[in-house]
Amino acid sequence: MSTAEVHSASPADAAQFGRETGSGGQFVRQPNRFTDRVTRDSRSAPGEGPDDEGRWPVEPGRYRLVVSLACPWAHRSVIDRELLGLQDAISLAIVDPIRDERGWRFTLDEGGRDPVLGIGFLSEAYLATDDEYQGRVTVPALVDTKTGRVVTNDYPQLSLDLSTEWVDLHAPGAPDLYPEKLRAEMDPLMQEIFADVNNGVYKAGFATGQRAYEDAYDALFDRLDVLEDRLADRRYLMGDAITEADVRLFTTLVRFDAVYHNHFRCNRQKLTEFINLWAYARDLYQTHGFGDTVDFDHIKRHYYLTHDKINPTGIVPKGPDALRWLTPHARG
Amino acid sequence: MSTAEVHSASPADAAQFGRETGSGGQFVRQPNRFTDRVTRDSRSAPGEGPDDEGRWPVEPGRYRLVVSLACPWAHRSVIDRELLGLQDAISLAIVDPIRDERGWRFTLDEGGRDPVLGIGFLSEAYLATDDEYQGRVTVPALVDTKTGRVVTNDYPQLSLDLSTEWVDLHAPGAPDLYPEKLRAEMDPLMQEIFADVNNGVYKAGFATGQRAYEDAYDALFDRLDVLEDRLADRRYLMGDAITEADVRLFTTLVRFDAVYHNHFRCNRQKLTEFINLWAYARDLYQTHGFGDTVDFDHIKRHYYLTHDKINPTGIVPKGPDALRWLTPHARG
Repeated sequence: MSTAEVHSASPADAAQFGRETGSGGQFVRQPNRFTDRVTRDSRSAPGEGPDDEGRWPVEPGRYRLVVSLACPWAHRSVIDRELLGLQDAISLAIVDPIRDERGWRFTLDEGGRDPVLGIGFLSEAYLATDDEYQGRVTVPALVDTKTGRVVTNDYPQLSLDLSTEWVDLHAPGAPDLYPEKLRAEMDPLMQEIFADVNNGVYKAGFATGQRAYEDAYDALFDRLDVLEDRLADRRYLMGDAITEADVRLFTTLVRFDAVYHNHFRCNRQKLTEFINLWAYARDLYQTHGFGDTVDFDHIKRHYYLTHDKINPTGIVPKGPDALRWLTPHARG
Repeated sequence: MSTAEVHSASPADAAQFGRETGSGGQFVRQPNRFTDRVTRDSRSAPGEGPDDEGRWPVEPGRYRLVVSLACPWAHRSVIDRELLGLQDAISLAIVDPIRDERGWRFTLDEGGRDPVLGIGFLSEAYLATDDEYQGRVTVPALVDTKTGRVVTNDYPQLSLDLSTEWVDLHAPGAPDLYPEKLRAEMDPLMQEIFADVNNGVYKAGFATGQRAYEDAYDALFDRLDVLEDRLADRRYLMGDAITEADVRLFTTLVRFDAVYHNHFRCNRQKLTEFINLWAYARDLYQTHGFGDTVDFDHIKRHYYLTHDKINPTGIVPKGPDALRWLTPHARG
């Protein structure tokens, strides 16, 4: 199958409003295709990697993290990479926020190609790994620079592995974002945040039926109400220290008023109308690794210019003023 | 020309995204076609009316005011009618908030016809008045029940005439909404509110180019900032008493967070994020004639289900909570 055929079968917008729509008009996110893992010991994670067991080794400089600064799923790994000090160990490739019918593009790079991977479209790496791949090409993708293969686009496992498998390459004093003693409480919390908030805004925005939309809207704001209460007497979701749960909640909150409130019709209230969540989100924004990895230009242009089925005029809303993120938060 | 031909030439959405779009993508509202006036003396306003001079007399029970509860232009006359006590003098016809390709419909009435005018579509009255009419059929329309003709769809003059020409039929103690001594200040104020706010939200929402949209957005919020300051030390726009200027500003403000902020991309901030304007709007909402003529169901279904070019999925956003309009305002 030629690359062109795959591309034309996956226009940016139709992908999410076709194969990923259920019979009730509800959005059903596709599974992540590539689920290999980079691991630090011999006990875990055989796959398609280079050793006899098919494992991918932790190795500085070997992998390239391909992200869109617009994408909340990719944003997790960008924040983790900063918090853990993995910038030198794992290089970063940033795609154009605007997908065309061929998907994510390296049009921000000279000559329209990623300088390390030498490809113009992320789909080329997908097809180099699975030449029959026909799903939506997603970020983040961790690509092996030696073979050009996609190791993983399984973003939740990827970000946990940055914390737990890449530990030998962490910066001195790096935080433990996934502490063993908290996992029993963190795992279900992160699952709730995923289902109702991270993916919940998409379920609201990509619904093609009123009922499916309202179900997602209700679940989203019910969950935000619970989180609002949780943050009344603790600085971060798990207490006094930032964890992966905060990273995951933040990437949705920072996009909320700029995109989800309008574009995805999540308009019971703005983030700025939650007392604790808004102060908490500003607290994180003003912490290294969070606000300095936010690009509102990429975020707004991506959503408003990619989803023709939601915003056919292609107007990018001018508001709200991003400077509000820098106002004092009085937490901690 | 048959009615069907006129209708099919004027689909609800294409009308505003075709003939009424300028070369820079800016929205250019069509002029009001019918500009006769109902007047109380012999000095004014010849037209197509029944007397030798073509004047339309003030006469209780003769005219029918056709409105959509969704429409801010029609809403002016509905509020004025309440404030002035003209409910018995001028009857009210309410169209379905959803226009189909044939325009405003009387589908809320038994048998799908207005019980007084006997028509199923407002366009029938337009064509009975001008059988070559091809523009967009608009509300409010004041229709003569004796002849079935449209006297006027000129909403700014209509609402002033309710105050000044229908005075003999006003309720005892009715307010003077257009006081002579204030007109020199009121007229330019109302013109600014029209250009930048009432029509400004439409210029933002119906723009098909980014520049045209941003120009409208900037003018809108600059004007709202001026009005915010104006309302810091006076209860109403013209001082201690409600005037037509308040009626006109209110009809846009009450729709702002429910529709214009999202649907028309007027998202620098919500109305609830203006201190004075939000309290002022609640003050009016809680005054007879204002809040009791607001129908958020009609408003939201109209905008979100009529403009396919802006909201093709037809999802009606569930928020925000209308109960906020009933919170105390601490003004006056």
